[in-house]
Amino acid sequence: MSDLPASIAADLAAIRERRPLIHNITNFVVMNSTANILLALGASPVMAHALGEVEEMVAFAGALVVNIGTLEEPWVAAMARATEAAGRRGTPVVFDPVGVGATRLRDEAAGRILAGKRVTVVRGNASEILALGAGLGGGKGVDATHGVEEAAAASAELARRLGAVVAITGETDMVTDGERSLRIAGGHPLMARVTGTGCAATAVVGAFLAVDSDPFMATAAALSLFKTCGEKAAAGLPGPGTFAVRLVDALYALSPEEAAASCRLAP
Amino acid sequence: MSDLPASIAADLAAIRERRPLIHNITNFVVMNSTANILLALGASPVMAHALGEVEEMVAFAGALVVNIGTLEEPWVAAMARATEAAGRRGTPVVFDPVGVGATRLRDEAAGRILAGKRVTVVRGNASEILALGAGLGGGKGVDATHGVEEAAAASAELARRLGAVVAITGETDMVTDGERSLRIAGGHPLMARVTGTGCAATAVVGAFLAVDSDPFMATAAALSLFKTCGEKAAAGLPGPGTFAVRLVDALYALSPEEAAASCRLAP
Amino acid sequence: MSDLPASIAADLAAIRERRPLIHNITNFVVMNSTANILLALGASPVMAHALGEVEEMVAFAGALVVNIGTLEEPWVAAMARATEAAGRRGTPVVFDPVGVGATRLRDEAAGRILAGKRVTVVRGNASEILALGAGLGGGKGVDATHGVEEAAAASAELARRLGAVVAITGETDMVTDGERSLRIAGGHPLMARVTGTGCAATAVVGAFLAVDSDPFMATAAALSLFKTCGEKAAAGLPGPGTFAVRLVDALYALSPEEAAASCRLAP
Repeated sequence: MSDLPASIAADLAAIRERRPLIHNITNFVVMNSTANILLALGASPVMAHALGEVEEMVAFAGALVVNIGTLEEPWVAAMARATEAAGRRGTPVVFDPVGVGATRLRDEAAGRILAGKRVTVVRGNASEILALGAGLGGGKGVDATHGVEEAAAASAELARRLGAVVAITGETDMVTDGERSLRIAGGHPLMARVTGTGCAATAVVGAFLAVDSDPFMATAAALSLFKTCGEKAAAGLPGPGTFAVRLVDALYALSPEEAAASCRLAP
Repeated sequence: MSDLPASIAADLAAIRERRPLIHNITNFVVMNSTANILLALGASPVMAHALGEVEEMVAFAGALVVNIGTLEEPWVAAMARATEAAGRRGTPVVFDPVGVGATRLRDEAAGRILAGKRVTVVRGNASEILALGAGLGGGKGVDATHGVEEAAAASAELARRLGAVVAITGETDMVTDGERSLRIAGGHPLMARVTGTGCAATAVVGAFLAVDSDPFMATAAALSLFKTCGEKAAAGLPGPGTFAVRLVDALYALSPEEAAASCRLAP
Repeated sequence: MSDLPASIAADLAAIRERRPLIHNITNFVVMNSTANILLALGASPVMAHALGEVEEMVAFAGALVVNIGTLEEPWVAAMARATEAAGRRGTPVVFDPVGVGATRLRDEAAGRILAGKRVTVVRGNASEILALGAGLGGGKGVDATHGVEEAAAASAELARRLGAVVAITGETDMVTDGERSLRIAGGHPLMARVTGTGCAATAVVGAFLAVDSDPFMATAAALSLFKTCGEKAAAGLPGPGTFAVRLVDALYALSPEEAAASCRLAP
């Protein structure tokens, strides 16, 4: 996949140039951190979840991010409506099925958001992707209890079924569209000690989707860049409080060239 | 406006002395950062939005902050009720019409909150003030697409119509009560790269309103102080993560004298 | 209480080893900071508040944290249901009655959450504990207006009535189960200048409850550790922004031995 570094550099430069509006319907825990990460990256975040405004808001957006981390019934309806509106407009959608498999509410919400609609990318941890793909359940809250490798086959099948790119993040990230697949190395264990880094990765994918018409490459590029920033933020092994602050700084400071040069594929 | 530095010093000292309770009905994205900024400044924030308690809560407050950043129907009703209750008690209200002009829901919410009620100050970016004043719309999410100068005439007219102080924040801040007007220089571009700095400025205005009976001077004093803290936090050009942390530190450390001495008017 | 240092060391080591899932139904202001503090400590937080999933979620949890900081009617119902489900399973519950006494809604919510159910620990400031115990009211928002000493007798009586441990945090923390009582010294005034430190202390108690079957010792151990981390974060007297970041770092870096050695009882 020799053109991934080129995609990373071009996409990051395009985000900084165009400042795409990213419409997020996401959870209460990460709204602030997600907005700050998108702003640091160069994108323009908006958070809006009311059923009465999501269709209008998504019309301004370069991408829609849907994240079910802290669900409520009216939010699920708004997520479904926004996803449908994005589909009609051809606006890319990235879906983060936080905690799917842990409760029926989450399983049903994921079902309603996906039913009859099209999402461009699904990003989750291995447990979530397995649960989403197979109705297996067994997730422990929002933490991954399965490894990426276990979920590899399931993710390719899920990608084909949804007609979407599926990304699993973890120690190694995996991206597949059902035919192609890529594994990305890097990152740092501190990323798992800060809440919302997975959700932030999803939002960064959203920003890349807004400027890159190839969802597979855009997703891989976004996740590679995010891993690079995680490594930079972890330099000197700070605690997770300082790490979270530096992660935002790193997204702001990273040049397209450096982002491209730091990309490392895994076997 | 030779007495602005004196107002800044006196108001900041009064906030630190009296620790006024500031009742915020604000958006999910900025609740944490707004509370921390008010605490750092010396005020005492409370966040409460349930229709069933806002009247009681506003009775304890020195000022009410109403911010429509992440709307929902029940919240709009609570905002209207709290604004009405504050008006009856003579408690100052600062209104932040986040994203007004972008969706009908926001336009209607602003209309309901203002209808038949009195707010003391409206603070927004230029696009929001133009949209609120003229029903023009055209905002891009919650980012400003218009400059402060374009909105100058509209803001003065809006101030007269509402009988309120109107403040537009941006590279230069402008404050008007429809007759007097002031422009405040300073600040730093990093302020636009952290989510909720506009919302935080609104909350700081709330704290100043709680201790200063002249809303025009209180608003100008608050915005001047906030720009000063933005400059201090930006020293050494950190990334936006570090900047956000230092902004809180700066609000805590700034002395009344330094705040007064740092005030710079724009022509 | 010579075995408190031993409890601190053993509990912290157990949290890092077992990474207990802590189910939080908490307020919008502190969701992010609470999750990060639990992650830094070594626990595994999940935030879930929908009536339709709290029973399932609490079944995965080592402890339930219920915090009424930003109430809404559906949340109260979910809190009551989750508390009841936790009681049936024998899962420990820590209840944080934020702002009780300030509004009827909060008083009624506390009543509904406690009615006919069992909570393991109640943690509040002195005003909240007095209000909860005696229906006195008089709280000023969510800040303490009463001292710990005033609330000592009331807390012991409340502990006996609820069959729970009651903890009052402030300059000195007090823990009682109605018969035994302990006072913990330490901490730093900056802890009161960051929003959600009380809520974070409650969540840390939750993590300790998940690994220690003696709620009295677990609560005292958690509060002692939290005060130690507050002191460490305050070293060099940073502003409250930097302090909040360092508090997370301190929770991550603190060794069981150091936590035990730093424990200081007050007379």
